[in-house]
Amino acid sequence: MKNILSTILLAGSIAVSAQAKKDSIQFAKISTEILNKGKSYTELRELTKNIGHRLSGSESYEKAVQWSAQKLREAGADKVWLQEVMIPVWVRGKESLYIKTAKGNWKSLKMLSLGNSEGTGGKDVSGEIIMVRSMDEYEKLSPEQVKDKIVFFNYPFSQSYIETFLGYSDAAKYRTTAASLTAKKGGKFTIIRSLSSAFDDVPHTGAMRYADEQKIPAVAIGSTTADELAELLQSQKVTAKLNSNCGMKGERRSHSVIGEITGKKDQSVIVVGGHLDSWDVGEGAHDDGAGIVQSIEVLRTFKNLEIRNNHTIRVVCFANEENGVRGGVQYGKIAKESNEKHLFAIESDAGGFTPRGISLDMDPEKRKQIQSWSELFLPYGIYDFKNTYSGTDLYPLHDMGIPAAELVPDSQRYFDIHHTEEDTFEKVNRRELLLGAVAMTQLIYMIDKNW
Amino acid sequence: MKNILSTILLAGSIAVSAQAKKDSIQFAKISTEILNKGKSYTELRELTKNIGHRLSGSESYEKAVQWSAQKLREAGADKVWLQEVMIPVWVRGKESLYIKTAKGNWKSLKMLSLGNSEGTGGKDVSGEIIMVRSMDEYEKLSPEQVKDKIVFFNYPFSQSYIETFLGYSDAAKYRTTAASLTAKKGGKFTIIRSLSSAFDDVPHTGAMRYADEQKIPAVAIGSTTADELAELLQSQKVTAKLNSNCGMKGERRSHSVIGEITGKKDQSVIVVGGHLDSWDVGEGAHDDGAGIVQSIEVLRTFKNLEIRNNHTIRVVCFANEENGVRGGVQYGKIAKESNEKHLFAIESDAGGFTPRGISLDMDPEKRKQIQSWSELFLPYGIYDFKNTYSGTDLYPLHDMGIPAAELVPDSQRYFDIHHTEEDTFEKVNRRELLLGAVAMTQLIYMIDKNW
Repeated sequence: MKNILSTILLAGSIAVSAQAKKDSIQFAKISTEILNKGKSYTELRELTKNIGHRLSGSESYEKAVQWSAQKLREAGADKVWLQEVMIPVWVRGKESLYIKTAKGNWKSLKMLSLGNSEGTGGKDVSGEIIMVRSMDEYEKLSPEQVKDKIVFFNYPFSQSYIETFLGYSDAAKYRTTAASLTAKKGGKFTIIRSLSSAFDDVPHTGAMRYADEQKIPAVAIGSTTADELAELLQSQKVTAKLNSNCGMKGERRSHSVIGEITGKKDQSVIVVGGHLDSWDVGEGAHDDGAGIVQSIEVLRTFKNLEIRNNHTIRVVCFANEENGVRGGVQYGKIAKESNEKHLFAIESDAGGFTPRGISLDMDPEKRKQIQSWSELFLPYGIYDFKNTYSGTDLYPLHDMGIPAAELVPDSQRYFDIHHTEEDTFEKVNRRELLLGAVAMTQLIYMIDKNW
Repeated sequence: MKNILSTILLAGSIAVSAQAKKDSIQFAKISTEILNKGKSYTELRELTKNIGHRLSGSESYEKAVQWSAQKLREAGADKVWLQEVMIPVWVRGKESLYIKTAKGNWKSLKMLSLGNSEGTGGKDVSGEIIMVRSMDEYEKLSPEQVKDKIVFFNYPFSQSYIETFLGYSDAAKYRTTAASLTAKKGGKFTIIRSLSSAFDDVPHTGAMRYADEQKIPAVAIGSTTADELAELLQSQKVTAKLNSNCGMKGERRSHSVIGEITGKKDQSVIVVGGHLDSWDVGEGAHDDGAGIVQSIEVLRTFKNLEIRNNHTIRVVCFANEENGVRGGVQYGKIAKESNEKHLFAIESDAGGFTPRGISLDMDPEKRKQIQSWSELFLPYGIYDFKNTYSGTDLYPLHDMGIPAAELVPDSQRYFDIHHTEEDTFEKVNRRELLLGAVAMTQLIYMIDKNW
């Protein structure tokens, strides 16, 4: 197999140096090892089925901390530790949303409160729904028109982008800002159309933020639920009634989980990570169980193939990406304080789908160097090095000038299930997940050797 | 949206001619049209849920013929007709496979007879199982060792290839030849490990062939079933008992379905197609309902966007790809006899997954010309023009010297479900399916304009 794979590779490039040939053989070894002996898929089954979703602050998150520390030890980490961090505790509790037309009966809608939102304190809050299709439309409404109303932001997720992250970014402000905008004009609560690429009734949660002290509730409904509501509103008045118990419950001491293999030449650090927390629905399989188990796979592969690591390779399972990024911020703070040299950091936090590229958030020279390796990556389906963002948890490192990156998997299915009950282990394909670990291991192999 | 998309595209290329700019705008129009208004996903739901699987020779295949003719008319074809072809009729019937150890009871195994296989005529046929792991191992067995035995070919699907079609090709001879090889040494029937990239108990059917008149039964079991059987065989003798009713039931007059929009400049033909038949399990969603609805989408998009087609664009829904390729052969025969000029042909028959490339089976000059358009395709995730095969149904055209091609979707999930009960509509993602139609429409737009 190794011979076949390297032949395929070599046939594709015009002039191959002896070094590129060596690297291509190492790439093939990494791929063959992971595709045949990788454990990330079975580990993801454990994480999702034995622990399940694991919102920061929950007991299941604490179980995931212990679990991932154990997996890092089993993978062969020289050193495993927990990095303390204070995290916000947001709790959902029971919740319901009903609608009613003048002549109709109350009808229950599938919904989820947005993360970080305050609830109604267990009381019914009701009012007439007014719908807007965009921020522009909302801005034209006077406070008199909004006062005591329920504002329904029915902004559709754009299907036109090829990379669905662009559609998500385009619609994200509705989720983050709708509540405060509604409160400012005197509305009682807000309903948003989910940030979803699918046409179904599945609501998507995700973080919202309050701009000020007027904390009214914000909930999401699925795209077909939104379409049905919009149709109702064309011909008649509709009343909504929300009852929810969600809200912030202070903070809690918790941990990110870190494991590493010590550098043989020096101890400057290469970080590979994902976030260990998830939303409190589904199983957090693609978001971001995938990134956690892939990162552990990278470390295990260096150990199993006995690849000499010049620098320290460190897996970081970040706490609280979803509703605070406290784990990422704390990691950056400690890295700065300790003056520990970081060479490079990569995160996998876009789902466990077939990888297509690596996004590079660094100076042009370093970008170019990585892009010059693209012939090595092409046989593994990795061709796209054009993006320039990095993982959310890595922004503090990036702000310190450390070259940062993110794995770019195929994005077509991600926003069908992102932050929903549907983000389960069954939605993850074994080979697609493993190929993400292959690409990250190959990249780290090259950086470790050449930087 | 159009502006955004073309800006993204243009930013990526170094020198852009006025023509390339025009083409990039047309590419964006095609993509935006299909991603927002494409009907292939809802049509696939109709085909799979209202008709379901549709093996050549079955009544459901005949329903699919009528359905696809109707869809071609609705899509705006100028002309729709049925192309007569005689097809083999293979029928599965009831079937069961049991195994038993010396001390154990009979235990049922999940299985499927291979397509085209003869059965046991409704009688129990039993014998001791002997297992081989490869052709080499089987060749070393003497006729005395095989006589009256059940030969179990337990050759694993290789996980090491990045493109899973290579693993499939590698293992395919076990499915096609195991029965005749077993018969030659006096075995009673053969069991093969399914050609499956998944680790589960799902059996995969698919075509086998008899090399001569000794027609013994051939069945497939899932990969975990094979592993369990292999483990049993390590320590004890195991008897298998097969009862099946499958077999060839002659031939039947049937049809491929053809629809076209007539060329405005001349009537030389560009073919886009898939195969309308499927195996008799699951719903034939990825294989090849996807190719059918994507091909119809191409025609509809030319009509809806009022793109001038210089040449005739013809959708062909081929009959009997799975167990005979009679539709493809007949199409080629008639094309030759009628001396109808064909410019180009493309098939989609590798699943409705996110497209990654186009495989080009044609002379080097034509290949190079298509490859020179790669900058236009890159923003749509189409980067891979290295493969040199074309769709199975197109080989007769290719043999006549007509440039042929196949859509290359991501291959990671295909062989988990290929030819199984699991190949259902639910396994198809809307955006992934639509993007395949986008890529084929864009390519045909370019060929129609430039050839």
